[in-house]
Amino acid sequence: MANITKKVSWSSRGDESGGGERTPLLNGSEDVTYTRQFSGGRLFQIGRLSTVDLEEEITSDEESLRSRPKEIPHNEKLLSLKYESLDYDNSENQLFLEEERRMSYVGFKCLEISRWVVCGLIGFLTGLIACFIDIAVEYMAGLKYLVVKDNIEKFTEVGGLSISLILWAVLNAAIVMLGAIIVAFFEPIAAGSGIPQIKCYLNGVKIPRVVRLKTLVVKVFGVICSVAGGLAVGKEGPMIHSGAVVAAGVSQGRSTSLKKDFKMFEYFRRDTEKRDFVSAGAAAGVSAAFGAPVGGVLFSLEEGASFWNQMLTWRIFFASMISTFTLNFFLSIYHKKPGDLSSPGLINFGRFESDSVAYNLYEIPLFIIMGAIGGLLGALFNFLNYWLTIFRIRYVHRPCLQVIEAMLVAAVTAAVSFVMIYTSNDCQPLGPDQSEEYPLQLFCDDGEYNSMATAFFNTPERSVRSLFHNAAGTYNPLTLSLFTGTYFFLACWTYGLTVSAGVFIPALLIGAAWGRLFGILLASITSTGSIWADPGKYALIGAAAQLGGIVRMTLSLTVIMVEATGNVTYGLPIMLVLMTAKIVGDYFIEGLYDIHIKLGSVPFLHWDAPATSHWLTAREVMSSPVTYFNKIEKVGTIVDVLSNTSNNHNGFPVVVRLAASDESGKICGLILRSQLIVLLKHKVFVELARSRLTQRKLQLKDFRDAYPRFPPIQSIHVSQDERECMMDLTEFMNPTPYTVPEETSLPRVFKLFRALGLRHLVVVDHENRVVGLVTRKDLARYHLGKHGLEEMQLAQT
Amino acid sequence: MANITKKVSWSSRGDESGGGERTPLLNGSEDVTYTRQFSGGRLFQIGRLSTVDLEEEITSDEESLRSRPKEIPHNEKLLSLKYESLDYDNSENQLFLEEERRMSYVGFKCLEISRWVVCGLIGFLTGLIACFIDIAVEYMAGLKYLVVKDNIEKFTEVGGLSISLILWAVLNAAIVMLGAIIVAFFEPIAAGSGIPQIKCYLNGVKIPRVVRLKTLVVKVFGVICSVAGGLAVGKEGPMIHSGAVVAAGVSQGRSTSLKKDFKMFEYFRRDTEKRDFVSAGAAAGVSAAFGAPVGGVLFSLEEGASFWNQMLTWRIFFASMISTFTLNFFLSIYHKKPGDLSSPGLINFGRFESDSVAYNLYEIPLFIIMGAIGGLLGALFNFLNYWLTIFRIRYVHRPCLQVIEAMLVAAVTAAVSFVMIYTSNDCQPLGPDQSEEYPLQLFCDDGEYNSMATAFFNTPERSVRSLFHNAAGTYNPLTLSLFTGTYFFLACWTYGLTVSAGVFIPALLIGAAWGRLFGILLASITSTGSIWADPGKYALIGAAAQLGGIVRMTLSLTVIMVEATGNVTYGLPIMLVLMTAKIVGDYFIEGLYDIHIKLGSVPFLHWDAPATSHWLTAREVMSSPVTYFNKIEKVGTIVDVLSNTSNNHNGFPVVVRLAASDESGKICGLILRSQLIVLLKHKVFVELARSRLTQRKLQLKDFRDAYPRFPPIQSIHVSQDERECMMDLTEFMNPTPYTVPEETSLPRVFKLFRALGLRHLVVVDHENRVVGLVTRKDLARYHLGKHGLEEMQLAQT
Repeated sequence: MANITKKVSWSSRGDESGGGERTPLLNGSEDVTYTRQFSGGRLFQIGRLSTVDLEEEITSDEESLRSRPKEIPHNEKLLSLKYESLDYDNSENQLFLEEERRMSYVGFKCLEISRWVVCGLIGFLTGLIACFIDIAVEYMAGLKYLVVKDNIEKFTEVGGLSISLILWAVLNAAIVMLGAIIVAFFEPIAAGSGIPQIKCYLNGVKIPRVVRLKTLVVKVFGVICSVAGGLAVGKEGPMIHSGAVVAAGVSQGRSTSLKKDFKMFEYFRRDTEKRDFVSAGAAAGVSAAFGAPVGGVLFSLEEGASFWNQMLTWRIFFASMISTFTLNFFLSIYHKKPGDLSSPGLINFGRFESDSVAYNLYEIPLFIIMGAIGGLLGALFNFLNYWLTIFRIRYVHRPCLQVIEAMLVAAVTAAVSFVMIYTSNDCQPLGPDQSEEYPLQLFCDDGEYNSMATAFFNTPERSVRSLFHNAAGTYNPLTLSLFTGTYFFLACWTYGLTVSAGVFIPALLIGAAWGRLFGILLASITSTGSIWADPGKYALIGAAAQLGGIVRMTLSLTVIMVEATGNVTYGLPIMLVLMTAKIVGDYFIEGLYDIHIKLGSVPFLHWDAPATSHWLTAREVMSSPVTYFNKIEKVGTIVDVLSNTSNNHNGFPVVVRLAASDESGKICGLILRSQLIVLLKHKVFVELARSRLTQRKLQLKDFRDAYPRFPPIQSIHVSQDERECMMDLTEFMNPTPYTVPEETSLPRVFKLFRALGLRHLVVVDHENRVVGLVTRKDLARYHLGKHGLEEMQLAQT
Repeated sequence: MANITKKVSWSSRGDESGGGERTPLLNGSEDVTYTRQFSGGRLFQIGRLSTVDLEEEITSDEESLRSRPKEIPHNEKLLSLKYESLDYDNSENQLFLEEERRMSYVGFKCLEISRWVVCGLIGFLTGLIACFIDIAVEYMAGLKYLVVKDNIEKFTEVGGLSISLILWAVLNAAIVMLGAIIVAFFEPIAAGSGIPQIKCYLNGVKIPRVVRLKTLVVKVFGVICSVAGGLAVGKEGPMIHSGAVVAAGVSQGRSTSLKKDFKMFEYFRRDTEKRDFVSAGAAAGVSAAFGAPVGGVLFSLEEGASFWNQMLTWRIFFASMISTFTLNFFLSIYHKKPGDLSSPGLINFGRFESDSVAYNLYEIPLFIIMGAIGGLLGALFNFLNYWLTIFRIRYVHRPCLQVIEAMLVAAVTAAVSFVMIYTSNDCQPLGPDQSEEYPLQLFCDDGEYNSMATAFFNTPERSVRSLFHNAAGTYNPLTLSLFTGTYFFLACWTYGLTVSAGVFIPALLIGAAWGRLFGILLASITSTGSIWADPGKYALIGAAAQLGGIVRMTLSLTVIMVEATGNVTYGLPIMLVLMTAKIVGDYFIEGLYDIHIKLGSVPFLHWDAPATSHWLTAREVMSSPVTYFNKIEKVGTIVDVLSNTSNNHNGFPVVVRLAASDESGKICGLILRSQLIVLLKHKVFVELARSRLTQRKLQLKDFRDAYPRFPPIQSIHVSQDERECMMDLTEFMNPTPYTVPEETSLPRVFKLFRALGLRHLVVVDHENRVVGLVTRKDLARYHLGKHGLEEMQLAQT
């Protein structure tokens, strides 16, 4: 334990917090258990800290850290200070207000129209990407399966199937290696499904490089490799991330990576507007992945939007619709059935009979039982994955190790599949309406095929579909239980690998397998019959239960499932099952995405403040004292504060002092680090303005051009003479930052913060003097643990 | 014109506004056109006012006003001062915080569970009510149609059908009279669909008596009478209102009307919690009405929730689900098919074929054209209804006149229907699978029936269903066009009558009729065929277009339609059609509900501040000066302020003065009128507390017991001695009200207000001194008119 915790060190904790220096809680260098007693009479534990000061160690390692630290804080009781926040509250400074006031009604209308255009583009491009992924995966996987199938068929007769096994494993490992290399070496943030990262982004946490073009390219090629490489993964989750990147790119009208500025949509170059588009992109991604435009909108709202706005929702819906439509249109052309509207998403559940008596009242308790099973299995999945992730953070953090692990998993997947198929003797007759793409005969009689192979020797999407729709009797129970067991562990091992891939499809597949098994067992117990005869229905319910048990989404998942099924009749059972799975699962452990967010030590704000936090007030949570500036401030002071490496403050209150002797002035504004940097870069100094009267005034455009990659303070040269100049912040600061009095309770602060998407909240006393600053990390620190309210540690990594 | 505007008079406009006395803009008694020039260089017109002082006239008429004024302000450019706001921001005073801090984690868990229980109850009761309405309407309408049918059949042969006409008209008028009488004389707020009222409630406006038990009873019986009476109305809209009333009742654990307190759910007795339950109730109503649980949730969110919370949404969904399930269950028992799940809602669109090629790519432009037609017809409908409503406000405001109008409409509806059926010669063969409930033979040959009668001689729900599903050729084009025309005007005339009824079904019916007509014409133009052969599809699209064109809902309506159709395939066309209808319709006139809200002069806050309002700041919109109290205030002062009839303030800032000579003190809290009244009632005076040490401390329970019907100040007796006592407000005021500086822009104030559901927002200067107060009406006043930003007048009525 010690060799991990020693990496953790209390920092001065200034980041974001506008210069808050935290009263040092710990001074010694030995393990200390620090407890604090509050007026409410409750105890809570700050945590056990090993404060061996390792800052130097971290610094010395810095060059070898590449883009991410060698050891990520593995403990979910930590909050990382490396994450900055996004600013979802407009900084309404004079420049901004002047621009808004200059704009006519027609101007606003044009803006509104360009928002729609951008959303249309987002939907279109997301649909195209989905289409590309689908075709590429189908082509590559098809090639691979044909090669392996030919090989197997050749060697079935002459013996020596081990060569087939090796061929299959090597092919898989090779393809996966490609995918893992680009992810591990070029863009580690593209690993996984990207859903946790997008959740964080929409929540207001700036995850570095998450919406860059490079990430998108790596993601797309990575996902093609991992699916074609036969891993137990899906290509649906990554679509959400891809859609978000497309949105962030298109809406800015430029690409910083390609150094190309189209001079379009400049108005949208700020966090507030960008977030709305990223929501639309994520929705478009869901929509293309599952053919679920309404589900996409709900996903975006459930994960991101804190404030529901009718027009925004409607635009997001538009993007979703265009996205699924584009995908459908191009796929219909690819499948040589132009105009056919049968493939609205990457995964297609196939047609369920639209029958109003599809299920009966007395089946509902059964569905609830299945929901509970899904919750239990989901919790087990999450629990195993949690430990696996901690193991990976500890030992598998070098890119080459990560690539090797991915290859290993790919090879093992192939080997396990092969063994399962080989040992299975579940032969099924090859019917005339056989829809299997690659029926493996193996040791079956002529005119029969190996049933296990339809589950293993197939892309997961196809396997799901055959579990849903193949006629009763296609699978025997043993096949299904073996498949469920192995696939469960394979999928669990796979999620978190350094490849770009999603967990939706594996979860559906596991669930469909045990659901079908459940249906078959049920039919064999009750001899009565006809209504139980369709195990496909139970496969669907099982799939919903398993997916719900793992990801714990609520309304949006219900709608996604219903839309993917294409049949509203199954709405009620799916909902019941998801509700049960969530309740049961939440009893044991959180959802998979939340686990990964916690393990990443991201300062994520949940919906509400912890229930028992009413006895904390702004005074206790805020950072204090605060570094602030005067309205007219010396350049040298500003440069010094910004360059101070011990803190990376991002927001500074601006004050007026009525008397020179005033200790702390009254708040009159708030200015951001990024704004100050632009001001310094353009040398907006009072003295220079006087001497160069013709110099053009700094405009909002200058800030927008620098957004979002503001240069570091080190890159800005300020001469000794210039250090003596003064800077007038009046025009650039936000003159009306939100403030709260010190006595405000934590839930109230939390609500204000969350509802308005704030980054900094100034705490003032009754005289309107600045006494502290609350940032995201100050709020995210508190969570309900086993012993009541707990405070998380803050760490630099 | 003059005889209407003269009733309108500028009041001192103190209501809600915490004592803001508006600087009088107008002093003369002649018509004045007052213009104000702002720094932004824009002009806007305050409005043309006739300020003949008629306050006495209003007062003298008061006793005859019954529960509503004789002349409602008919002008949508007015904001009424009679509406108070709801407080969706918790008043976190000491009592509240103490209670929250006392509560353990288990306590919060129990609360959470009881929220789920309440939602389950809401769903169950709403479903039961829907079931009752359905059965009652079916029974009564069935009886009526049988009587009339027998009569018609008798007189078809012997001649003298005019007797049948009279019988039909009289029956209709009699049933409608019943419904109109209970609405007009007992509870006028139960008129109409109730959707505008619920929108207002969720928006934060307190519409008097809208969620009372009496309203529910009148609503339910009213809607049964109006539907059974053959009016062109539906029973679906009122379900939303009914659900909301059920929710408001159940969640409070008592009925003030029945004077019964179950001592349950006392924690929920405040506006914040109640709103959440009312959202759930409205959703449950939608869910029962259309069998659309997801649509219900989206309706609640679209109309009401400003802040999306995952658990809240999930609970609302639960209520919706229980509601549709309850309805389905009891209806299946009633229909003697227990366990059959085929009637999830009051309206059932019937089964559409689940066919992935249900429509084709090249039909999409046609759908868009239909959307545009729907938008145009919807705008026409709204325009006609707008003028009709103004006419009604002017001339039809006496209850007896209202009842007579309703009876007239009922009789005319019957007469028109009869004439249409009589003159129609569209005879159709009576097939073996004939599903018509009351086929009228009239002058048709034996074995045939009159096709016009299936549309007119039927409940509207059945007519919609037959338009959707009857085989091609069942209706001839002439029948459909005549029906569309007459029903359009009948429905338009009917909406706004003093009966309890909704507009959803008539809109669907009109749309289905012209949609089917469109389909038939299309098929006759293009001879090719098979894909065009199904006019039912066009009926569905037409129905969506017409409904969208009238009510202008977006995402929620899409989902409701898809759920009611039971087929996801139609999602895309429905969405396209609704989008087009909204865009086209919005170009001409607002949605029907918004028109009625405007005509009611309700201070409704839309999603955003008007686009061009950045040049207004809190300083301009606030009311000033403000009446405020000291922390320890003389009882006499408080009583005087509260009793001052010229204003009915609802929120008062509490200040501390550092020096006795201070003109205005620094803000230290906010106290509500309702809190002061409870304090006065319990005589919480400093002197009494000293003398009676044993007296129990005032608790939160005392405030909850008085909620929501706080007594008027006149009912509280304060003796002359007591007037000299002091009251300590420290414990009861909200010590951390949200404040903004004077320079805050209107959009920023608006966002804060809307996102947090505020009722009062204190405006302070840099010294934290109170300078003004912003309330809902100050924000709702501004709207975008033809000449840019306009300010609405405030009127007392």
